[in-house]
Amino acid sequence: MKITGISGSPRKGQNCEKIIGAALEVAKERGFETDTVFISNEEVAPCKACGACRDQDFCVIDDDMDEIYEKMRAADGIIVAAPVYMGNYPAQLKALFDRSVLLRRKNFALKNKVGAALSVGGSRNGGQEKTIQSIHDWMHIHGMIVVGDNSHFGGITWNPAEEDTVGMQTVSETAKKLCDVLELIQKNRDK
Amino acid sequence: MKITGISGSPRKGQNCEKIIGAALEVAKERGFETDTVFISNEEVAPCKACGACRDQDFCVIDDDMDEIYEKMRAADGIIVAAPVYMGNYPAQLKALFDRSVLLRRKNFALKNKVGAALSVGGSRNGGQEKTIQSIHDWMHIHGMIVVGDNSHFGGITWNPAEEDTVGMQTVSETAKKLCDVLELIQKNRDK
Repeated sequence: MKITGISGSPRKGQNCEKIIGAALEVAKERGFETDTVFISNEEVAPCKACGACRDQDFCVIDDDMDEIYEKMRAADGIIVAAPVYMGNYPAQLKALFDRSVLLRRKNFALKNKVGAALSVGGSRNGGQEKTIQSIHDWMHIHGMIVVGDNSHFGGITWNPAEEDTVGMQTVSETAKKLCDVLELIQKNRDK
Repeated sequence: MKITGISGSPRKGQNCEKIIGAALEVAKERGFETDTVFISNEEVAPCKACGACRDQDFCVIDDDMDEIYEKMRAADGIIVAAPVYMGNYPAQLKALFDRSVLLRRKNFALKNKVGAALSVGGSRNGGQEKTIQSIHDWMHIHGMIVVGDNSHFGGITWNPAEEDTVGMQTVSETAKKLCDVLELIQKNRDK
């Protein structure tokens, strides 16, 4: 099974890419295949709400979203990390979320994939829960199966994330929970 | 006193611009000056989180945000309308919110301005409350004074908004509430 980690930060090599890395390490140790989508490397224009993807299988905008659609389709689990910008995930990640409406319109292509969320804020309690909730909202709208960290809502870290031991613990707990539920579902599918 | 209406929809002349128009009509009838920012007419690139506006008074990105900063500074009240895209406001509006961090870094330039929110969804209960809550979050982070529609959270409409009498009632109630509280604050300031 495959878990894809999405970093929603426009900044290369910073907190979100690091906490995605930490989460995917847990997944690899559990024998999962992993993949990544780092917004800092991608060109994703905002959705124009033109509605074309109601009738056709591709988006009218020609950018990196095509490749990202395939990565999301190919994943069994999706874990999204976002920094808190003004109380929620950044516009760059919301562009990816908005453009993902195409997958919803293709028979809910992300239905029953398992999802989890991580966040990093400049303050200890600086909107991380709000951001995680909004990521979960996106997942519910796709019909995904959403999990927290077996204690609260997901991985919640305080910048600099790597030095936030309490936060990094919630990151790995979230990754473990994602792996547990994927295995649970897989066992029942194999019966 | 001035109320600025912000439409967060990339689509010209559609629901959000109409409900902003309806809200500003109420304000005009009450003797307020009004102004608008329609994202459909604006070029606002996403924030790169470069941090330059911590030390300087302008953003490194040269687009329509400069004019929008002035409109927001000049407003006493701000009313924001957004369509629901995948459970929250669109990426184009979040770009404006993210770039508005500059005003926060200039001594909370929006502090104590009064704010209210409107939303429109494709379903009757399709994320409008989530979207309004996220707009309110942005306002709180600026230290603004946030009001609902004197009953719940703000103007909540169902596409096509203009034909949604129940929803349009909450739009005008939200506008009235915004005017009431602005007048309340003004009276106390004049004492």
